[in-house]
Amino acid sequence: MEQKIKLILEYDGTAYCGWQRQLYQPTVQETIEVALGKIYNQKVVIVGASRTDTGVHALRQVAHFVPPQSLQQINYVKAINSNLPSDVRILEATSESIDFDANRSAISKIYEYKILNKKKPSAIHRNFSWWLPIPLDIASMYKASNHLIGRHDFKVFCASDSHIKTTVREVFEVHWYEREEFLIFMIHGSGFLKQMVRSIVGSVVEVGRHKWSISNFETVLHSKDRSLAGPTAPARGLYLKDVFYS
Amino acid sequence: MEQKIKLILEYDGTAYCGWQRQLYQPTVQETIEVALGKIYNQKVVIVGASRTDTGVHALRQVAHFVPPQSLQQINYVKAINSNLPSDVRILEATSESIDFDANRSAISKIYEYKILNKKKPSAIHRNFSWWLPIPLDIASMYKASNHLIGRHDFKVFCASDSHIKTTVREVFEVHWYEREEFLIFMIHGSGFLKQMVRSIVGSVVEVGRHKWSISNFETVLHSKDRSLAGPTAPARGLYLKDVFYS
Repeated sequence: MEQKIKLILEYDGTAYCGWQRQLYQPTVQETIEVALGKIYNQKVVIVGASRTDTGVHALRQVAHFVPPQSLQQINYVKAINSNLPSDVRILEATSESIDFDANRSAISKIYEYKILNKKKPSAIHRNFSWWLPIPLDIASMYKASNHLIGRHDFKVFCASDSHIKTTVREVFEVHWYEREEFLIFMIHGSGFLKQMVRSIVGSVVEVGRHKWSISNFETVLHSKDRSLAGPTAPARGLYLKDVFYS
Repeated sequence: MEQKIKLILEYDGTAYCGWQRQLYQPTVQETIEVALGKIYNQKVVIVGASRTDTGVHALRQVAHFVPPQSLQQINYVKAINSNLPSDVRILEATSESIDFDANRSAISKIYEYKILNKKKPSAIHRNFSWWLPIPLDIASMYKASNHLIGRHDFKVFCASDSHIKTTVREVFEVHWYEREEFLIFMIHGSGFLKQMVRSIVGSVVEVGRHKWSISNFETVLHSKDRSLAGPTAPARGLYLKDVFYS
């Protein structure tokens, strides 16, 4: 009986030109496909839940592949990890029915964005956060972000080079919280447009630094006009945190 | 009037063969000396409080140098950082009297050691912690570590290639605590021998995994016999946390 293998994986996106395979550029997808190719001695294609951008990290990306042969007693986690560089780690591997699709079956995703909000830069966290050495009004950022909740046309927060049918998405939950020296944004939604979270964070930070009022943010959110969005926050602070299935 | 400049710095030690300058190997000391050389157009030597090993990180290393010329209105932090790679950051720069010596004036230091104690490996934290996917008895580790407090001959925990007059050091304080998915060891002492903290952590972990009893650890501690020490914990989990002066 044909089946699919579902992988849960974590990666440090620093050295990769994102998830999706590209010619002449290192990507996470290709890195895992190379590892699977060594195990099966033939080309194996994997499908990921989210096409994370260059430099974006994942704490629980989900992917699937159809095993070209049935290998007896294989421990997928160990077998794949032993063929991967240490900046990509398989956390779990499970069998799923052939209907499962890591991308199309996903019903929602959580992203997190880490801001290092202190005066002094950090060598240790440089690839894993956005260093913002300016005072931020967190209460206002929280209020502005609450306007994201619900079903909206998020065109204003979508990269201009994206070609997608609809820019309507639903946001279920947002949160800003402080953890040690970090200020962390959590967003849970039905799906996300290209650079949507980074664009949202960049615009919410405009509120936090009092460049924009909260009602200004609300106007921008509903404008559908990309040129009105704030600057896009850097990729290094963004983490795909989790992907949910029904 | 001659003066010294005291620097506080943070670094990600992953790419460096430790602090101390070596021929044909990248080191943190040399990296900073190259940056100072660009500012002063001549060779400047710096002295560090601690000679951290290959792969060891620093949250607040201290160093000093004698400025070869007096530069008007220089912002040392900005000037040096703009000539450094992003994995080394100057956090503070202050003027000190000529008597100050980052190494010899230090009266105590704090190190931290981070263990990632969970079943699944981490891509994000791979260079910044020791992944130990085994159950650890933290209460016993805490009890064993308490025997370190006081003035002892720590020869058993000193790398065998170290050539030093005395291996007697004083430990003021130790602590194990949990923070998110990490188990962290903090040790505050008058000074530390080569690989002392990593050797202590490796031996305390032997207690934590019930390979050694607490009294076994105590016997080893007082043995002065290097061959009795447990395995040395990997460098990537170690952080120079702070250096104190009178």
